[in-house]
Amino acid sequence: MEGLLATLTMFMPQCADAVLIISNENRRYFTGFVSSLGYLLVTRKEAFLLVDSRYQEAAAQQAKNCTVVPFRNLSDSLKELLTANMIRTVMLEGSAFTLNEAAKIEAVFAEVGVSAVKTDELDRIIGKMRIIKTPCEIELMRKAQRITEEALTETMKLIKEGVTEKDLALELEFRMLRAEAESVSFDLIVLTGAKTSMPHGVPGNHRVKNGDFVLFDIGATVDGYHSDMTRTVAFGKVDDTQRRVYQTVYQAQQNGLAAVRDGVTCGFVDDACRSYIDHAGYQGYFGHSTGHGVGLEIHENPSVSPGSDFMLRSGMVVTVEPGIYLPGKFGVRIEDMVVVTTDGCVNLAALPKELIEL
Amino acid sequence: MEGLLATLTMFMPQCADAVLIISNENRRYFTGFVSSLGYLLVTRKEAFLLVDSRYQEAAAQQAKNCTVVPFRNLSDSLKELLTANMIRTVMLEGSAFTLNEAAKIEAVFAEVGVSAVKTDELDRIIGKMRIIKTPCEIELMRKAQRITEEALTETMKLIKEGVTEKDLALELEFRMLRAEAESVSFDLIVLTGAKTSMPHGVPGNHRVKNGDFVLFDIGATVDGYHSDMTRTVAFGKVDDTQRRVYQTVYQAQQNGLAAVRDGVTCGFVDDACRSYIDHAGYQGYFGHSTGHGVGLEIHENPSVSPGSDFMLRSGMVVTVEPGIYLPGKFGVRIEDMVVVTTDGCVNLAALPKELIEL
Repeated sequence: MEGLLATLTMFMPQCADAVLIISNENRRYFTGFVSSLGYLLVTRKEAFLLVDSRYQEAAAQQAKNCTVVPFRNLSDSLKELLTANMIRTVMLEGSAFTLNEAAKIEAVFAEVGVSAVKTDELDRIIGKMRIIKTPCEIELMRKAQRITEEALTETMKLIKEGVTEKDLALELEFRMLRAEAESVSFDLIVLTGAKTSMPHGVPGNHRVKNGDFVLFDIGATVDGYHSDMTRTVAFGKVDDTQRRVYQTVYQAQQNGLAAVRDGVTCGFVDDACRSYIDHAGYQGYFGHSTGHGVGLEIHENPSVSPGSDFMLRSGMVVTVEPGIYLPGKFGVRIEDMVVVTTDGCVNLAALPKELIEL
Repeated sequence: MEGLLATLTMFMPQCADAVLIISNENRRYFTGFVSSLGYLLVTRKEAFLLVDSRYQEAAAQQAKNCTVVPFRNLSDSLKELLTANMIRTVMLEGSAFTLNEAAKIEAVFAEVGVSAVKTDELDRIIGKMRIIKTPCEIELMRKAQRITEEALTETMKLIKEGVTEKDLALELEFRMLRAEAESVSFDLIVLTGAKTSMPHGVPGNHRVKNGDFVLFDIGATVDGYHSDMTRTVAFGKVDDTQRRVYQTVYQAQQNGLAAVRDGVTCGFVDDACRSYIDHAGYQGYFGHSTGHGVGLEIHENPSVSPGSDFMLRSGMVVTVEPGIYLPGKFGVRIEDMVVVTTDGCVNLAALPKELIEL
């Protein structure tokens, strides 16, 4: 066994002879193979990727570090493998198996005297691996970020009176996909006017008008790895309240970025943003966490949230994204994605953040 | 309580005072509100939608038939609600709760003396509701199908020597999104040449060349409802083997469509396709089921698979999509989405299926 699967076997818990991984992300993480269904059974000696006929040919060509086992009937193939490899206990991926799926697989296991271990230990082991990004993973995220920035730079030229949120969101999506993004990182958020006060609003037919903020929370994926960035720009001149809110978020984000380095807690970084916003008089208007890990999933550990004593370590990739939301009026959020280093962080985002009044 | 939530309370099992729904699709199905996180607690009298601050404003405006409860700390809000409503037992959505999530919520429940019911009964109840589509749901799927067909009709004009799978997939996606699709139904499948033999291949930089099949498995969503269609067309003239395989799949699909009606089993429809393919000499080259239900999810019940004795009923929407895949050579699949009726089916797809040689 090679690569990440070898690392996994080093940490495999004593209480299980094998582990069963079913989430799309973790199957991809360990085998490099992309599919919407599959079962990765990892023993201490070998890894087996069970796929149905749809994926048989592609998996045989593309899956790394494992033996591809095509199945027609999952139960039969699984029972055969378990018996042949003398497996008595299998730890399930507790973050991926639903209650119903677990009940079904336990019934199959029982037929061959195998018992399931249903704890979150496997997730914790994989989580510890995935949270520290390799240079290769970081390079993919940097590429995804570059695609995102180029798309936003071009799309901002199209902001004018009357253009809709959806027009801008589509333009961004098309540009990213044409630029070799595998997909967009999430349903792109483009909001204008009062809708900017909804941190997760959905782009609609609202039209940009003079004096409005336009908020872009966008990202692309490259080989499964995500980027995540938010910029808020003004169309026309802003009023004093808008300017004050913008500058407050801007400075809070600077403070957050300055706080990031190996060895500090996530709570420390959150507080660097939040206390500035609170002291500026906007306590209660920053209703979400300061950031989150990013990687094969758009939201990963760690959560950069209030009071968290989770310690940042070099190689982690997190967002720093404070915001202020005045319901019914407007909202501002600024977000970068950074790699934690021993003496600070490397910002994967390069687009400027000073207030732009188009 | 009104609408679908009222129906749910009628079927709520005796063993639970309330049910807890967390899947995006079922939250949307019952409340009409779209979000990536939320907890829908339904008692016999009332429904509560717990959302975090990101969704507070939008949920208050858009969620139907329920009381929106914004939470900062989920455990605290949940415990309050359970106590205030004198709930002692809560049935979990077993198809959505992971083992880890269930363990966490049970710990919260335990603090206020509430126990969790972990069976698949809630899923079976909701499944019985969702499998029969209302005229309104069917209308949305018809609209999604229309968008899909218009996009394919326009995109087919762009097929020429050298165009890549990805070029065509992007063109389709852009056209669907511009035409008011909410999203694409799934990662669109556009494959050419030998890649058409992979039922779930991913569009890449392979280029169309003379004599190749081009396979499109595509769909759009409208208000959450999916369409699903596959067409295989030839660029240039096909050879005799290609023609024979195409005609076999074509006739198998016709046979499948003719078999669909209220009261027949899914196995009967599968066999109508499969036995024709087998008898034409392609046994073993049709490695997937004949079809599946479609609705708020792209793959829903029922599964139109070999030997299934599940009975089709009026108002169900299923695909009929036989295929023949010759590994390393080529594949052909033809798929329509139909509404089951008392005396047959209504085909939601209108695009012709006779072999096209561009």
